[in-house]
Amino acid sequence: MIEKHYAVQPIGVIHSELVSLDAAPRQGDEGGTEAWLELEASFAPGLLGVSPGDELIVLTWLHRAQRDVLQVHPRGQLDRSLAGVFATRSSDRPNPVGLHRVAVLELSGYRVRVAPLEAIDGTPIVDIKPVLGGPEDR
Amino acid sequence: MIEKHYAVQPIGVIHSELVSLDAAPRQGDEGGTEAWLELEASFAPGLLGVSPGDELIVLTWLHRAQRDVLQVHPRGQLDRSLAGVFATRSSDRPNPVGLHRVAVLELSGYRVRVAPLEAIDGTPIVDIKPVLGGPEDR
Repeated sequence: MIEKHYAVQPIGVIHSELVSLDAAPRQGDEGGTEAWLELEASFAPGLLGVSPGDELIVLTWLHRAQRDVLQVHPRGQLDRSLAGVFATRSSDRPNPVGLHRVAVLELSGYRVRVAPLEAIDGTPIVDIKPVLGGPEDR
Repeated sequence: MIEKHYAVQPIGVIHSELVSLDAAPRQGDEGGTEAWLELEASFAPGLLGVSPGDELIVLTWLHRAQRDVLQVHPRGQLDRSLAGVFATRSSDRPNPVGLHRVAVLELSGYRVRVAPLEAIDGTPIVDIKPVLGGPEDR
C-alpha cells in the first residue's frame, strides 16, 4: 500500500560560497566549488568509515525549485524543444531531489569538506551514499 | 531557512516479479530483473523525450527500510565491522531514497519498462533522471 506522502527529514545543510541560483553552475563539473556538508550532530554516527579520497553521492532537497513544472526547455535554452523533466536534470520537478557526485577532501567531526558541488549555500542534505565501486562500499 | 520536513509525493510505483525483500538482490547488477515503472497519469507529460535505449537513474522511496538505523554491518555480514550508513548502500538510513541505474526497454503511455532493477514490487517512485552523458540529457 503506497502512502500519499513521505516525510523527508534533512540530515544537514550545505555551506558554500555559492549563494545565488543565478551564480550557481548547472552541474558540479561545470564550475562547482568546495563546500562543507554540515550534518546535524545526531547523524554523525552515520559517517563512520567515510574517509578523505572517497567518492560520494550527495542527495539534496532543492528547496528553491518549482514542484509543479513537468516540462522545460533543457538548460533554460528557449530555442530547444520542450522536454519532460524526467528526461532532463532540471531542478524543477515534482520531488526536487538533487544528485551530486563529489570527492571527500576533509572530515572534521560531523562536517565533511567536498568538491565539486554546485548546490547553493543553505541547501538541505537528504542522504549521502558511496559511489559503487566494489564490495567494500555497498 | 531550513524546514524540518519536506513532503515527498510518489510519482508512481514499481511493478516487478520481485515481491519479497529476502529474494531481492542488493544491487541491480547482482540479479536485478525487468520491471515496469508505472507513473501516475498526471505525471506522464514529464516523460516527454524519454526513449528506449536511454540510461536513467530511478529514485525510489524504500518504504520497507528502517529509518532509525545509523550504523550497519555492510551487506548484513556480521563478521564485518560496523560502518555508518552514509558509507554504505544499506537501505536502512534516515531518508531511505534508493538509486537505481537502469536502461529503458519500452515505453507505453505512462509506463516504462526498464532493467535491471532490484527494487521490490510496490516500491514508490520519487524521481527519474537521465544519466549525465552529454548536453542533450541535462
